[in-house]
Amino acid sequence: MRKKQGLLIIADGLGDRPIARLNHKTPLEAALTPNLDQLAAMGMTGNVYPIAPGKPVGTDVGHLHIFGYDSAVTYSGRGPLEAFSGGLDLMDGDVAFRGNFATIDEAGIVIDRRAGRIRTGTASLADALTGMVLSDGTTVLVKELTEHRVAVVLRGRGLSDRVSDADPGTAHEGELLPRPQGTDGSAEAARTAELLWEFLTRATPVLNDHPVNQVRLVQGLLPANVILTRGSGQKMAFQTLKERNGIKGACIGGDLTVLGIAGIVGMSVFTDDSFTGSFDTNLKGKSDWAIELVHQGYDWVVVHIKATDLAGHDNAPEKKIGMIEAIDAMMGDLMRAVDLEQCLISFTADHSTPCEVRDHSGDGVPTIIAGTGCRRDGISSCSEKDFVRGSLSGLTANDIFNLQMDLMGFSRKIGS
Amino acid sequence: MRKKQGLLIIADGLGDRPIARLNHKTPLEAALTPNLDQLAAMGMTGNVYPIAPGKPVGTDVGHLHIFGYDSAVTYSGRGPLEAFSGGLDLMDGDVAFRGNFATIDEAGIVIDRRAGRIRTGTASLADALTGMVLSDGTTVLVKELTEHRVAVVLRGRGLSDRVSDADPGTAHEGELLPRPQGTDGSAEAARTAELLWEFLTRATPVLNDHPVNQVRLVQGLLPANVILTRGSGQKMAFQTLKERNGIKGACIGGDLTVLGIAGIVGMSVFTDDSFTGSFDTNLKGKSDWAIELVHQGYDWVVVHIKATDLAGHDNAPEKKIGMIEAIDAMMGDLMRAVDLEQCLISFTADHSTPCEVRDHSGDGVPTIIAGTGCRRDGISSCSEKDFVRGSLSGLTANDIFNLQMDLMGFSRKIGS
Repeated sequence: MRKKQGLLIIADGLGDRPIARLNHKTPLEAALTPNLDQLAAMGMTGNVYPIAPGKPVGTDVGHLHIFGYDSAVTYSGRGPLEAFSGGLDLMDGDVAFRGNFATIDEAGIVIDRRAGRIRTGTASLADALTGMVLSDGTTVLVKELTEHRVAVVLRGRGLSDRVSDADPGTAHEGELLPRPQGTDGSAEAARTAELLWEFLTRATPVLNDHPVNQVRLVQGLLPANVILTRGSGQKMAFQTLKERNGIKGACIGGDLTVLGIAGIVGMSVFTDDSFTGSFDTNLKGKSDWAIELVHQGYDWVVVHIKATDLAGHDNAPEKKIGMIEAIDAMMGDLMRAVDLEQCLISFTADHSTPCEVRDHSGDGVPTIIAGTGCRRDGISSCSEKDFVRGSLSGLTANDIFNLQMDLMGFSRKIGS
Repeated sequence: MRKKQGLLIIADGLGDRPIARLNHKTPLEAALTPNLDQLAAMGMTGNVYPIAPGKPVGTDVGHLHIFGYDSAVTYSGRGPLEAFSGGLDLMDGDVAFRGNFATIDEAGIVIDRRAGRIRTGTASLADALTGMVLSDGTTVLVKELTEHRVAVVLRGRGLSDRVSDADPGTAHEGELLPRPQGTDGSAEAARTAELLWEFLTRATPVLNDHPVNQVRLVQGLLPANVILTRGSGQKMAFQTLKERNGIKGACIGGDLTVLGIAGIVGMSVFTDDSFTGSFDTNLKGKSDWAIELVHQGYDWVVVHIKATDLAGHDNAPEKKIGMIEAIDAMMGDLMRAVDLEQCLISFTADHSTPCEVRDHSGDGVPTIIAGTGCRRDGISSCSEKDFVRGSLSGLTANDIFNLQMDLMGFSRKIGS
């Protein structure tokens, strides 16, 4: 068949539950969404589970599934993703951690998990540590990320990612730095935990002596004299979207996690300082980019908006409604600019972030797939309640990816 | 419970998408289907996925799933199915190919992939090749199929079905015959590819010298002097329907692929010259047979109609509507003749073939299970759009098989 293009808008954490002070409506039900209502009427609708009913996911895993990957196969901790975001090119067998520069005292107590929210100088600190060779020949790579964040990679033989966090966690700030342990009883995991501990204990004196920290002490700031590690994982074995589905994809957004996942699956990534990942993000800028990339001939253009999720975490239903209405206006711009004969328009979320939960939940997320030639469910109101009757209800994010690819003409027949 | 019988009508490729010149209806929505509407009102309805949303299937795989098999477990290429259709009884370890008698020149160029659409004499050509013993003791079995088609089986030790096609394909007719290769890097696959090549190169002089080809040359026809092979696979390990479900099944149709699949799962197969697999098929003959087989006491009688699929491939919505209305009339005959107290009537498709796609798609297929004692969805119009609200929507072909067996009293309790 003739191929079509696809445009997908992701409103992070969109799904919600009824809220008493909204007259028992969800924010999406309470919002005025004439454009999303019209889009719903032009296609298939439903509440879609990221992985399975009642299983909440993180933004990283949610997006892997939206992009058609199975996190059970491809995902082993956040470390490899953060290392990738930092530009580290992982090799098979590497074990990667995400971490923080933090402050530890002489007794081994973690005084501040973010080293006084250090913002500058972390590149020099990472440079002083990267390349350290451990007692068995394992090499350590260290790469600063945004603010106090850092990625650590162990590169050597026979390592395992079944290693516990060397981080007391937010609830236990002010306690001893926990010594990492193997978590699966294997000799490889125990050995890897010991190597990580060797690195962490050798790093502290290097960091204490570093000019960046000497200056911080003079300025009365907390020194960044330890690294806390968590999220250990090994390289994710990905076919790119191009290799797997034959499509050229692009992702527009401001959230580093989402852009990192998009990059790792081989999408071109477009961002701008005005794409803030918050309520003040430049939606007009995003839709202009999206229209331009569709015209440039990308097969699949994904636009990500973060603030709906933030409103859920903040238990701020009115802010969520406001953001939904702003997204609806952006949808109108996109629907007017894109030829629906040539380009499918879809709308979904990576997970629900119900305001009253203040965290991700395992509820389904409102989803639309629309365009000329799509089947139509005859549902003309975009809401969790109305979408219960839609044909997509109960499907998963992977199903929604596959349906988009099929409607765009990029699916492959099984059998003959 | 008391056992019931079941009657299943399969309209190949029935599902479709909205078509502008049908006022944005599908052919099924545009057709007048009083009998299917009545059947829908008497039971459960929905749009059912052959395997999963957005995953298009071939007719072979689609029917395996309708018959309750998982193609991921049982299907390894079309070769074994074609060999079975030709009456070859595969043994464990055999590798089977489907193929064509074709014409090759002295330079090794494939001049015609169907040997001038040869129709007669292929049995003699196959007889001249079957039983050939290759250099390592592997034996080759060759069996003619319809027209230019042929099945080839390698029987020996340590063979693999991970072998590429020895066929340039339609797009590359006029190019060199490709030498088959192992596709998984194993020694077994490489060896099997070499053995296949030995057979193909030894077959050509035998075929060139054969009286059938000598006569063709005199008549100015292209000789059938090479076999092109594709679709390698090994024996599918099937329990029959009788072994697995305890049912005696029958399949009525004209399409050789469907009848082959039905035979391989142990159903009795009924066909007739008037069951053409096209628009002129004898629907009255099929329904008469179906009624007779229900009366004879078969537990499950399946009727297959191909032409709805052909209309999709031809992008001929009006022909599809005409065929649907003819099938609807046949449904009326069946509903009047069969006692719905004793016999379930179901209706489905193996996949969708949307006219505008001109190929199979991953859309759901309209499905009904009806009869006295069935739950009723209260939907009294047979269409993709109305079936969105049905209880079967989003289920798979395997689910529909299991629901039929359960309603017929042939399911087995899990646990106690």
